[in-house]
Order: sequence, then structure tokens, then C-alpha cells
Amino acid sequence: MPDARRPRLSPEERRAQLVATGVNLLAEHSLDELTMDVLARHAGVSRPLLFHYFDTRQGMHLAVVTTARDSLLRASEPHPELPPRERIRDTLLRIAEFVRDHKGTFHSLVRGVASGDPAVRRVVDESRETNAERLVEAFTELGTPDTSALRVALRAWVAFTEETLVSLVIEREVAPAEVVRFLEGTLDGVVAAAGELAI
Amino acid sequence: MPDARRPRLSPEERRAQLVATGVNLLAEHSLDELTMDVLARHAGVSRPLLFHYFDTRQGMHLAVVTTARDSLLRASEPHPELPPRERIRDTLLRIAEFVRDHKGTFHSLVRGVASGDPAVRRVVDESRETNAERLVEAFTELGTPDTSALRVALRAWVAFTEETLVSLVIEREVAPAEVVRFLEGTLDGVVAAAGELAI
Repeated sequence: MPDARRPRLSPEERRAQLVATGVNLLAEHSLDELTMDVLARHAGVSRPLLFHYFDTRQGMHLAVVTTARDSLLRASEPHPELPPRERIRDTLLRIAEFVRDHKGTFHSLVRGVASGDPAVRRVVDESRETNAERLVEAFTELGTPDTSALRVALRAWVAFTEETLVSLVIEREVAPAEVVRFLEGTLDGVVAAAGELAI
Repeated sequence: MPDARRPRLSPEERRAQLVATGVNLLAEHSLDELTMDVLARHAGVSRPLLFHYFDTRQGMHLAVVTTARDSLLRASEPHPELPPRERIRDTLLRIAEFVRDHKGTFHSLVRGVASGDPAVRRVVDESRETNAERLVEAFTELGTPDTSALRVALRAWVAFTEETLVSLVIEREVAPAEVVRFLEGTLDGVVAAAGELAI
């Protein structure tokens, strides 16, 4: 007899549900701890079913990390109608609020950059790239020349930001607005230094 | 008959030699690729011998990463006789030169921060801490108050530095002195912003 509380899901919906369970587990587990066993237990499904949906643990990690990354990127999508400075501030604030509200997920994402698995690393790296690219757009609108020096500097600044968010928002529970004020205060100096970098 | 080219080593010497082989392999392999099999093959020893010396792959990784980290920290030991500004520049230059001369090792160390293994991560984290601590010392000598804001900011700036070194010294082969000029140009802005951070 089908369980009335558990409506029949399409394979896509069931897979999405398993991925969502995996993303939630990142709040308490590192990627390395997120094994097929752990996910099967929390999702209340069998290991063979997981292997049916993801083939390998690596495939499952890739799906989970991609979903976590996409929700961060979506939550911090720049508002194109804002002028560049306000857009940067608004985007940073939404990132900091996402980190406050999804501490474990963000921590796993940042740590995932150094995952041994190149495919997982690439997924996380892409979010750094996207965040750096958003900043490049805002600064070129402000008249800063679009150079590789600017790109390198902004990408490194994204790493600076990640570390700051972990230290201030996750470990010290500093208010997002205060953290954004600090981050903004460091950004122009980095962009100015990139202007002097001959590469 | 003993091989004349291979003098008998003490267990400590033999272990150190195996660790050194592992560190050299980091130039071409990620930590995840550095298995007992790979190390046994390159060191010309049996797997059981490796297990005798390191117990587990994790134990071997820990020994290799600790040795790699210590050689970076030793190579960039601050010269206490220099005044703070020059000491910072000199230390940064020696780090950048180490990265130029040991590209793969540095890359593995930076990536090792996000290793799934907490013990390995701690070893690499400690080198960030040490580098941040060296900067805190120099800035407090310059009269900057020693606050948690300063410490958080300088730790995040070390992450900024690592990313910059990978992008500029490893990927683009920019000269260490040029990279150091850029890094120095970003440092005071970060320290000033930390002065405004109320935590």
C-alpha cells in the first residue's frame, strides 16, 4: 500500500530530493564525511538506490556541491538596476547573509576548493570565478581598465572575502552589514594596487 | 652483497628519505594522488616497508605535508634585525622565491588547506597562522593596536597572498619582486580597514 505521506516522485524529483538532503548534510559534515552510507541513512533510502542515481560517491559529491554552489550564486545574483558601488555592496551583503543562514554549507564549499577531486574543485572554483567576474564588471563600469592584473587581484580578493566570512560571520557571528563595511574598505586598495601591476 | 651506492641508513634517515621523496612528488601530484603505491614505486621500496614507517596513508600524508610546510616556513623565517617594513618585504620576497622554486609543493600545500583530512588541514592551517602572526608582530611594532580585527584581517590577507602567488608566480611566472610590490600595495589598506572593524 503506498504511503500517503510520501507521494510518488518522478525520478528527477527523487534525485533532486536526495541532492537536497546531501546539501543539508553539508551543514554538519565535511564533503569527505558525506559517504553514500551517510546519505542513504539520512535520506531513508538504500545504498543501491543511491548508486542508481549517482553511479559513484564522486558523482554524488559533484551533484551536491553544484547545487550548494548554485544556491549561493543565485542568492547573491547582482541587481543590474543598481549603480556599480551599490550593486557591489548589495551583492556582498546577500553573500554574507547567505553565509550567516547556511554556515555549514558555505564552510564545506570553501573547504571544497581544496578537495582532492578535480571535478569538485572545478565546481567550487567556478563560483570564485563568477564572483570575481561580477566585480570586474562593476569596476569596469566605474572606469577601471579590464586587465589581467585586475582579474587576478579580484579573484584573490574573493579568497580574502571567503576567509573573512568564515572568521567573522561563521566563527564570531559578526553582523553581515559590519563585515561588508570591512570588506568594502579593503577593495579599492586592492584594485588600485592592481593598476600598478605590470603583467 | 650490500650495494656500495646505497649506504646503510638508520631508521630515522630512511624515514626522512622517504618523506623527502614524498615532498618531491608533490611537485607533480596532488596529495590525493600520492598513495602508498605511488610513493613505494618512486622510492624503490616495498609497500610493507612504507606501512612499517607510516602506519597509514594518512600518516604518510601528514609527514610529507608537515615537512613541506616546515621548509616553506624555514625559507621565509623573518630576519629580526630588519625594521618592520623591510622585514615584511624581505619575508614576502623569500616566500615568493620559494613558490617560484617549488611550484608544485606550494600548490599542494595551498590545496591541502581544504584536504578532507582534519589533521592534514591543521598542519597547513598552522602555516597560515604563523604567517599571519609574523605580520601581526611587524604591525604592532609599527604601532598598530593588536586586536582580533587585525588578526582576522591579516589571516585573510595571507589567503589573498596564497591565491595571488598561485596566479602570478605559478601560472603566469611573474617575477617575485613584482608580485611582492603588488602585495605590499594592498597590505596597508587591509590593516586600515581592520582598524575600523568593531569586533
